[in-house]
Amino acid sequence: MKRFTVGLDYGTESVRALVVRVSDGRIAGQAADAYAHGVIDSQLSVGGLKLPADYALQHPLDWLESAAKTCQAAMKAAGVEPDQVIGLGVDFTSCTMLPARADGTPLCLLDSFANVPLAWPKLWKHHAAKAATDRINQVARDRRESWLARYGGTIGLEWFWPKVLETIQEAPAVHDAAEVWIEAGDWLVWQLIDGPYPACRPTNLARSTCQAGYKAMWNRQSGYPTRDYFTAVHPAMADVVQKKMPGTLMAPGRRAGQLTEAAARLLGLARGTPVSAAIIDAHAGVAGSGVAEADTMVLVMGTSSCHMINSRIETPAPGVAGVVEDGILPGYFGYETGQACVGDAFAWVTRTLGQDHAELTRRARDLSPGSGGVLALDWLNGCRTPLMDGHLSGALVGLTLTTRPEQLYRAMLEGTAFGLKWIVQTLREAGVPVARFVASGGLPAKSPLLMQIYADVLNEPIALAESDQSVALGAAILGCLAAGSSASGHENFSAAIHAMARQRNDLTYRPQADASRQYERMYRLYRKAGDGQGALAQVMRALRQME
Amino acid sequence: MKRFTVGLDYGTESVRALVVRVSDGRIAGQAADAYAHGVIDSQLSVGGLKLPADYALQHPLDWLESAAKTCQAAMKAAGVEPDQVIGLGVDFTSCTMLPARADGTPLCLLDSFANVPLAWPKLWKHHAAKAATDRINQVARDRRESWLARYGGTIGLEWFWPKVLETIQEAPAVHDAAEVWIEAGDWLVWQLIDGPYPACRPTNLARSTCQAGYKAMWNRQSGYPTRDYFTAVHPAMADVVQKKMPGTLMAPGRRAGQLTEAAARLLGLARGTPVSAAIIDAHAGVAGSGVAEADTMVLVMGTSSCHMINSRIETPAPGVAGVVEDGILPGYFGYETGQACVGDAFAWVTRTLGQDHAELTRRARDLSPGSGGVLALDWLNGCRTPLMDGHLSGALVGLTLTTRPEQLYRAMLEGTAFGLKWIVQTLREAGVPVARFVASGGLPAKSPLLMQIYADVLNEPIALAESDQSVALGAAILGCLAAGSSASGHENFSAAIHAMARQRNDLTYRPQADASRQYERMYRLYRKAGDGQGALAQVMRALRQME
Repeated sequence: MKRFTVGLDYGTESVRALVVRVSDGRIAGQAADAYAHGVIDSQLSVGGLKLPADYALQHPLDWLESAAKTCQAAMKAAGVEPDQVIGLGVDFTSCTMLPARADGTPLCLLDSFANVPLAWPKLWKHHAAKAATDRINQVARDRRESWLARYGGTIGLEWFWPKVLETIQEAPAVHDAAEVWIEAGDWLVWQLIDGPYPACRPTNLARSTCQAGYKAMWNRQSGYPTRDYFTAVHPAMADVVQKKMPGTLMAPGRRAGQLTEAAARLLGLARGTPVSAAIIDAHAGVAGSGVAEADTMVLVMGTSSCHMINSRIETPAPGVAGVVEDGILPGYFGYETGQACVGDAFAWVTRTLGQDHAELTRRARDLSPGSGGVLALDWLNGCRTPLMDGHLSGALVGLTLTTRPEQLYRAMLEGTAFGLKWIVQTLREAGVPVARFVASGGLPAKSPLLMQIYADVLNEPIALAESDQSVALGAAILGCLAAGSSASGHENFSAAIHAMARQRNDLTYRPQADASRQYERMYRLYRKAGDGQGALAQVMRALRQME
Repeated sequence: MKRFTVGLDYGTESVRALVVRVSDGRIAGQAADAYAHGVIDSQLSVGGLKLPADYALQHPLDWLESAAKTCQAAMKAAGVEPDQVIGLGVDFTSCTMLPARADGTPLCLLDSFANVPLAWPKLWKHHAAKAATDRINQVARDRRESWLARYGGTIGLEWFWPKVLETIQEAPAVHDAAEVWIEAGDWLVWQLIDGPYPACRPTNLARSTCQAGYKAMWNRQSGYPTRDYFTAVHPAMADVVQKKMPGTLMAPGRRAGQLTEAAARLLGLARGTPVSAAIIDAHAGVAGSGVAEADTMVLVMGTSSCHMINSRIETPAPGVAGVVEDGILPGYFGYETGQACVGDAFAWVTRTLGQDHAELTRRARDLSPGSGGVLALDWLNGCRTPLMDGHLSGALVGLTLTTRPEQLYRAMLEGTAFGLKWIVQTLREAGVPVARFVASGGLPAKSPLLMQIYADVLNEPIALAESDQSVALGAAILGCLAAGSSASGHENFSAAIHAMARQRNDLTYRPQADASRQYERMYRLYRKAGDGQGALAQVMRALRQME
């Protein structure tokens, strides 16, 4: 009997289900479904209350209902029987999080909280916790908290504790009523292995070391930040870990539990199917790109980019969004680094110039490296790694009266490549070996020009993930790992990953010596203009105050 | 009998003739004519020889033929008889210059030189003398030539001696055969008062103190640079002033001579009509804007901008394109400052964004000062005053994913306003009083938004020249001055200017306090980003080497 594993891939707008053959990773069936309520950012879907700026919420029932639809549809498309499925893995956007009752009920589903915006799940890109983020960083710096170094010295606006503190400050009743603060991915897994709500028990809750490590400052050695720290941030946070963070920390790929009868019925799978602890969506792309070993950087390239690498070495590095033991794969220190604006920057150029993407690309291809002396700083959404500064902005430098649209476009492609090179240098200078590159995500397949520029700028070959569904495939692989060796036939996680995912053998982007030399000079100019302490960065920060 | 004066305004592409009433400056008739050969920048019109890059030449007969056509047409349109014209003034682009024989014949009109590009008149924007310019500057700096301070420390690529040296280096036979090196405006006046060629005599040649002062490093006290300096630059230049620069230096408005019989016939005017010494086109705009007094800055705003001011004080100022006694009006030290890219920058933004000027302006008008946090450095054609650096380039800073085209457009308008404010500050810091502002040229009438921004950024009211022909009107006023008080009825040049030209009394742009405050902050950021010694400027210079 052929064996299969299921991956549920929770994106910002929709969930995708993948039914994958365990032996070789072939996709047997798939389906996707957009959330009924989508991203809730202008008014509450229930009650219609207008939301403040920077809010981005979701409806928790969408996650269950869309999962039911897609999982059943993917199983049907695959022609696979429930008892052929050996495991289930879940990846989720992060930090998307919510307050819940101890029985798993999201607070927002209670009548008394339905009209309170902050009782609803906050999506990763909910950006209203600015003041809370500043407070959390300031107190950490004042107290010289040692964990700060693991996050490049700065906690992000989109992370877990800023969202908790925002709620304490803006809607204290929500925090008071919350018995469980939880990542959405963990909540979803909890529903599958112990629910759905209100049948859940907090003792059966499995929290992902990935989400906890990258978004909630948790560490395998030292746990969460101390009670003293939280007390200093806000008295109401003093006991938040002890009282509102129940559950067991568990690495992705570890078995969080098994499908309950009700959850199995919902998804159209078999009761007792093993379920993996959750993982952040981008991080699932590492396994899904066929990377099981240390020192290979996986570039997940899309509207923004997330570059991840597993290492045997734990060391602080500037602007790293986190170094987490067991954060990506068990047994490694996983590093997450990021660029806040990649595909989004290209789309901005195209839209602003009123041009056609394909035509711009065609003309940009004919230009020499260096875009005729135009240099772009790619910070249109701030700079993540290494500067960790959301107040920086984009710049176009070197404009003349003969500068053409395709030069601006190519300069932006090159700018993001310089940004990546800076990240790689930052890691290497910190002592993290970076030996190989594998690209995945939506962009690489769409833009050969971009990939050639990346190879030339890095002066390194770049392999491509074979699957165009590497994130969802990564989630499915976790399901296979949760099932265990005897069920899957793969003796360890490395064997499983290599059996089910790999890189394309027909295409690798290789650096061209002339272009690499030219880019080496241009990169020095990028670094000079992009000096985080320099005049231009200071001007950018001041400009953000003037909007 | 009503009295009139004629102005001949030589632009880059065409000449315009204005017949103006002496009593009040009313334009009685006008005509314009495009040069038959236009700007010669790809191949010689005679012989068809291909030209190198950066060449821009003109045909000297175009100047005479188009003047004949336009002057006769303007007189006819005015219904004015030749004996009603009391004087004639000429303004000309500069430094447009040519080698000639002692009898006034342009070398290029001799068969033996017709196929030698550098024997043809070089237009002001002929840009092939880069190496010669570097040499001229380097030797001047090495020798600490005192006149360098009068030009902000740098001689421009478009000026007189670089074009002479280029000819010596690239076409020595042309220099050997040249008996007279001469500005086109001076050559034209020479033809009118002593020719046309080959009837001219070098002793009757009147050289304008305006062209000589701003473009050929001449000074009323010290004359041209010394023989020692020229010898150090190139041995062949040693005696260039003594041997090839005959004529008398004369301020614009002084009578250079009177129309010869042949010249009068050519123009359809009367023999003996007084002709003024020539003036640079932009500089004619000062009188043509009704400005006769010291301390009023005249902004001549077009594709590029030229800002001029007469002062009682002579002092060096960084990046001033020249301070020349009698350079603009007799009795004053005239300062010329400039912005290399103004209307051209707006056109670049519009063209690059593929948008409509009017629509962009409409939407930019609705934005707050500061363009939503976008800052432009307006150096798309280099920076003239105060940095005098053609290797600088434009920049757009503060870009985000929500930045819209109209923000980029408005930021560019604001960038040129900051550039002007910097010039005003530079003059004031050097000790030159700047008390009033009058705008003229093509841009002010076209863009009320731009003018309001300029008033807000300067935090000063800006008056507008009444005439939309202030340059040609200025040339006509010079004709009136050359005629003298008894002929014109105006007792001195100030009375003549105020009678014939003035500012609009129905419209003055006045600063708005809120906007001025906002712009004061933004201007500090412009200065910080635009620091000529700063990292961004260094990056820009390096980028120009990478094209």
